[in-house]
Amino acid sequence: MKNFFKVMDIETVLALAVSFQRQAVETVSLMAASGRVLAQDVYADLDIPGFSRSTMDGYALRGASTFGASEGNPAFLRLVGNVSMGEKPDLTVRPGEAVRIATGGMLPEGADAVVMIEHTEAIDTETIEVYKSAAPGQHVILRGEDMQRGDKLLQRGQPLRSPEVGLLAAVGQSRLDVFKQPRVGILSTGDEVVPVETVPGPAQIRDVNSTALASYVASAGGHPQAYGIVPDDYDVLLSTCRQALAANDMVLISGGSSVGTRDFTIDVLQALEASEILVHGVSIRPGKPTILARAGGKPVWGLPGHVTSAMVVFAVLVRPFLEHLAGRDPQFNRRVRVPARMTRNLPSVQGRVDYVRVRLVPTAEGWDAEPLLGKSGLIRTMAAADGLLCIDANTEGLDHGTMVQVELFG
Amino acid sequence: MKNFFKVMDIETVLALAVSFQRQAVETVSLMAASGRVLAQDVYADLDIPGFSRSTMDGYALRGASTFGASEGNPAFLRLVGNVSMGEKPDLTVRPGEAVRIATGGMLPEGADAVVMIEHTEAIDTETIEVYKSAAPGQHVILRGEDMQRGDKLLQRGQPLRSPEVGLLAAVGQSRLDVFKQPRVGILSTGDEVVPVETVPGPAQIRDVNSTALASYVASAGGHPQAYGIVPDDYDVLLSTCRQALAANDMVLISGGSSVGTRDFTIDVLQALEASEILVHGVSIRPGKPTILARAGGKPVWGLPGHVTSAMVVFAVLVRPFLEHLAGRDPQFNRRVRVPARMTRNLPSVQGRVDYVRVRLVPTAEGWDAEPLLGKSGLIRTMAAADGLLCIDANTEGLDHGTMVQVELFG
Repeated sequence: MKNFFKVMDIETVLALAVSFQRQAVETVSLMAASGRVLAQDVYADLDIPGFSRSTMDGYALRGASTFGASEGNPAFLRLVGNVSMGEKPDLTVRPGEAVRIATGGMLPEGADAVVMIEHTEAIDTETIEVYKSAAPGQHVILRGEDMQRGDKLLQRGQPLRSPEVGLLAAVGQSRLDVFKQPRVGILSTGDEVVPVETVPGPAQIRDVNSTALASYVASAGGHPQAYGIVPDDYDVLLSTCRQALAANDMVLISGGSSVGTRDFTIDVLQALEASEILVHGVSIRPGKPTILARAGGKPVWGLPGHVTSAMVVFAVLVRPFLEHLAGRDPQFNRRVRVPARMTRNLPSVQGRVDYVRVRLVPTAEGWDAEPLLGKSGLIRTMAAADGLLCIDANTEGLDHGTMVQVELFG
Repeated sequence: MKNFFKVMDIETVLALAVSFQRQAVETVSLMAASGRVLAQDVYADLDIPGFSRSTMDGYALRGASTFGASEGNPAFLRLVGNVSMGEKPDLTVRPGEAVRIATGGMLPEGADAVVMIEHTEAIDTETIEVYKSAAPGQHVILRGEDMQRGDKLLQRGQPLRSPEVGLLAAVGQSRLDVFKQPRVGILSTGDEVVPVETVPGPAQIRDVNSTALASYVASAGGHPQAYGIVPDDYDVLLSTCRQALAANDMVLISGGSSVGTRDFTIDVLQALEASEILVHGVSIRPGKPTILARAGGKPVWGLPGHVTSAMVVFAVLVRPFLEHLAGRDPQFNRRVRVPARMTRNLPSVQGRVDYVRVRLVPTAEGWDAEPLLGKSGLIRTMAAADGLLCIDANTEGLDHGTMVQVELFG
């Protein structure tokens, strides 16, 4: 075995991500920006709101005109007009006067508060009674209260969820710069692997990895491109790998869990142009035989053949690299960890980080974490899991009842 | 105000979802199935694995041939062959014999265990020493251990994440039946609303809702179609609404937060063909003026104009309807709630369900829930939130330090 490398710890592997170049930038319309990563900072182009506006249906007035008003002692105000939506009112509210206003309407000059329609009664077309005292500022959003022109709202490297898309609409960003989505080439290797639509013969298995990895890549914001199944043949693997590398920003070679295929993979990675093996073995379980190379400046991964191991390595190692290429700033990488209680003892080996798939079971207080055990080749447990539990290298195992943090699947 | 309806509680509104018809079914390729909802049950077409296979690189043998073996007292075995990947071995392992096998290789007849290569040494080309006793079944996945032919694996109404896509690949489902994704027409109303690319004049605001709602619809698995801004004009609103209804499976009318616009919306909804107002007011804050109609068998929503209110109503009410149309079985609707500790007191009114946006702040024990307060027209707080906190109708408020459950944004 040509293993010249020391098994590397997870942090050392992850620290390599920044040595790869981020994606180029493109301009997209706001309607297409959901899920993309900003490649520019965004500032407010205006004060928002651009005018002091009512948050209720009612009457705009000077708060002082209502001081002391109550059910038993209403204030009488003179109705001097009406605010039309979308138009700047051309009147001024004086002491003892009121103007009809709807939610979102612009506060007329002189007014500093709004009284809800429910706390008033119209006496005639020119007079209203007000039953409640209104403090200045009541039911009003002041100009610039939400944001002020020039405020920095979003920053380069920030992923865009729906709320950010709304914020971009508010400041008129109908087109914006985002990072291009990384294209990821996926190769499956192994003489025993057959296409999904084939009925496997004796000793053969279907290509689960290409399909599952493509789905994971897409849900992590990449564009997967499958290159099918490559037999255990040096020349074919090398030429397919070159082809995938030329057309993509990252390449995943899955399979190669047997010694023979692993040797092929490492030989091919070394034979690629401008290539350097960065990682050959990681102190993680499952996933120890993971390989990472830099070829032509792009990351090329050799992933374990067992699909459940490949999935863990994708979640823990590959995804952060993909997110780096995609321009995402690590400060936005916070995955949500859910506190949960272990439903059984779980042994672990010191000096190695173990990842265990768990199901979250709701309880009266929160969640139970139920480890899904089983050999790493088992596919069925994969679909039952809600997330991953990490047992760090310094822990010998977890006891029944211990509180743990479960990292949800992306 | 033409409010003939009693304000309805959230559960009563949600129970109406099943009265709408699910989407039709279409067949897609597995590569396009991520994020879709299954419209068929899925069974294993084969035993998986289809043969007993090794999970390690090493030697296949009869466990009994190694009983009592140790470093000091190794077992000597005769090497009688080699298992090729993807091929059925044509030899039989007898007592005292071993066969070279790689991870994933098919166990030859007679063998019942695998010993790892690390626990052996080759003496010559025909003999190996084994230093560890192997129990029958060791490092072997038995035929059918993962799943057996005919096992029900996934069911109609189940959303497909990446692990399920992998499972479908394993059982040869290269094409499958899924529910069509609902098309959702989105209208913005209000004389004060101008397009995003416009600089708003005095008393005007940009159309934040259309863009934000389109993004929420897409992330909930729907196809948004924006119909732009409709002025406060009965005829225009009615004709645009008819147009949107004809081309979509659900319609969202946003805006209408002022009394005048609300009246327009309810009049238009009543004027639509085969129309029935189901809900006019919900005991939820924010979101009380929400309207739901059935028109031509399809749900049509009147949402609040404040963007942050519209977002809460979308998350709590509209999204479950959208997921119902999309074919999703409610058993898969489990949103992850994260237990967190309140960072301050939060008052609430009995008899009404309050939804408060919160930011999750990591602590040593788990998470703090920091309520993002502010008037409901403020857009900026929206982008800072991680999820929603529900204060139910029977609670008067939450005290600082109380443990709460935060529902994460979708």
